[in-house]
Amino acid sequence: MSTQGLLIVLSGPSGAGKGTVCKALLKECPQIQYSISATTREPRVGEVHGKNYFFTKVEDFEEKIASKNFLEWAKVYDNYYGTPRDFVIENLKNGRDVILEIDVNGAKQVMENFPEGTFIFLLPPSLEELSNRIYKRGTDSKDVIKKRLASAEGEIEEMKNYNYAVLNDKVENAVEKIKAIIVAEKCKVNKIDVVKEGFKNDLPID
Amino acid sequence: MSTQGLLIVLSGPSGAGKGTVCKALLKECPQIQYSISATTREPRVGEVHGKNYFFTKVEDFEEKIASKNFLEWAKVYDNYYGTPRDFVIENLKNGRDVILEIDVNGAKQVMENFPEGTFIFLLPPSLEELSNRIYKRGTDSKDVIKKRLASAEGEIEEMKNYNYAVLNDKVENAVEKIKAIIVAEKCKVNKIDVVKEGFKNDLPID
Repeated sequence: MSTQGLLIVLSGPSGAGKGTVCKALLKECPQIQYSISATTREPRVGEVHGKNYFFTKVEDFEEKIASKNFLEWAKVYDNYYGTPRDFVIENLKNGRDVILEIDVNGAKQVMENFPEGTFIFLLPPSLEELSNRIYKRGTDSKDVIKKRLASAEGEIEEMKNYNYAVLNDKVENAVEKIKAIIVAEKCKVNKIDVVKEGFKNDLPID
Repeated sequence: MSTQGLLIVLSGPSGAGKGTVCKALLKECPQIQYSISATTREPRVGEVHGKNYFFTKVEDFEEKIASKNFLEWAKVYDNYYGTPRDFVIENLKNGRDVILEIDVNGAKQVMENFPEGTFIFLLPPSLEELSNRIYKRGTDSKDVIKKRLASAEGEIEEMKNYNYAVLNDKVENAVEKIKAIIVAEKCKVNKIDVVKEGFKNDLPID
């Protein structure tokens, strides 16, 4: 019943499974627009501007930071990454829901810059499971894993600032819950325009 | 992930289809407890105490009003009707969701007495459709219908005090939306107990 799209911010500690859940959600709901990031890093082979990333020059990126044109941004090593506000807003205005899959720090910035978003915190089933997942990636040393887990504990403290928390015990369960959250958010009374629904017409009988 | 049940208050103007939607919801979700009303009217043939109603003596009912034992109550002609707080609370504590299907005045009282409920306003697709539905019942005179429609317009103004509004264009659509709202409500961060989810365990690796 609502006309404007929702900005769904999917965040949570690293290892919670944000990427997998987001991908599965988009497969089931292709009408949702994935928020494309801007970056100053070089395109890799096969990456397409406007699909994988908006590849942006450093000076342009910095100009957009200055003009508050990012919902969030970060510098990772030598490269900037950010969520262009214009792209998100344009989609929302066209009635399209946008999903932004992002780390906890990024989500914090979006809360400040776009508090009307729907903030979903994805929880791994337990720290044990989280450590298993990080282990399985096999890309990190034991020390890095310990740091990641310690920071995950800290990040879980952030959950209270979100609207929803979804347990990622199974990807399909998490996807079902996020779909339900989207439906429910669209039923919130502040998102419904009764005038458009025709209730202000004259009484149909005399 | 939450342990306590939800109190779902389904309300809306007369003719919105509350009864039909509630029945269809309970058929799909038999784990939800229908809130049983107390009444001082005589049982009709086949009505069972504790199933259709809690049949209550006038003096007991009035005592319970005095001791604030109703989430809402009303006197209709010579009979009292009310929602016993104890029955609802007991079910919620046992983790069972309770649905209360009630008119707009009743819902207003529940908002005061149990603001932590989930208040859903059921909207008929339009006033035209609402008048058709009331017509089809065939039980009301034209004057009564006009009064009902006028009061429906007033009742729709109450929508802003609810958490959600659900358009009852088709019963199955309305039921799907209410089911989604229930799922989403249980994902709200204030309803999730992380400690119980095991995140406060020690880090599993050394």
